[in-house]
Amino acid sequence: MATNKEIEEGSNFTPKFDDEGLIPVIAQDAESGQVLISAFMNREALEQTIQTGYAVYYSRSRQKLWKKGEESGHIQKVRQILVDCDQDCILLKVTVDAGQCHVGYQSCFYRAIKKSSSKKLEFISKKVYNPQKTYKNNA
Amino acid sequence: MATNKEIEEGSNFTPKFDDEGLIPVIAQDAESGQVLISAFMNREALEQTIQTGYAVYYSRSRQKLWKKGEESGHIQKVRQILVDCDQDCILLKVTVDAGQCHVGYQSCFYRAIKKSSSKKLEFISKKVYNPQKTYKNNA
Repeated sequence: MATNKEIEEGSNFTPKFDDEGLIPVIAQDAESGQVLISAFMNREALEQTIQTGYAVYYSRSRQKLWKKGEESGHIQKVRQILVDCDQDCILLKVTVDAGQCHVGYQSCFYRAIKKSSSKKLEFISKKVYNPQKTYKNNA
Repeated sequence: MATNKEIEEGSNFTPKFDDEGLIPVIAQDAESGQVLISAFMNREALEQTIQTGYAVYYSRSRQKLWKKGEESGHIQKVRQILVDCDQDCILLKVTVDAGQCHVGYQSCFYRAIKKSSSKKLEFISKKVYNPQKTYKNNA
């Protein structure tokens, strides 16, 4: 078992998976800095990501590996894999095309809480593709 | 229970907390776009963040609310609160000073996996403050 100092100050990559074998992952556009998606990996997804150079996640809803873009075509080419201080979160810097979110937006974070009401969201982005068309064509 | 369409395409803010009452939160520098930390909020932390305009998280290790910077002084002034498509992750755009990670770096993501070995990390940032001094002074 690594000590806190080893985990935080060391140079061994020892990612911490949770009780379900998952680690949260943030994907960020390597060029623009835009945060695109938040997802999970299990050990196999992480290994495939490292080996192939393309983002592979673990889908909790479908309970299987999910190569980002396998259906939609909106893949993520991995430029750099960062880990946080306590090694329980991963940040991918990725190169992407337009339309990373399955709802049709570039980023999954396309809404912000309104200043006037904390119960309401405002849309801060426009859709960049039609997901109904994309997912139908690739199904 | 909101439908998927309401959650993804609607304008009601209905954050999804997990079985432990937590939602993952990413904090990103509103100016530079740098991803700073990954943390969690419970409902109370989220409400305090919205009300006060400063990031308040829930510390899983200490099992209590944690106003970012309460000890270190490295607070996060919240500019915008975004939510992702399925409303199970929050992104804060924050204004910060230098030194957001308790290890002494600006960001918690100060290491990246080496190209030459997927088991090894390289340090990609320099420390911006001395945490031993900071936390001793504020203890």
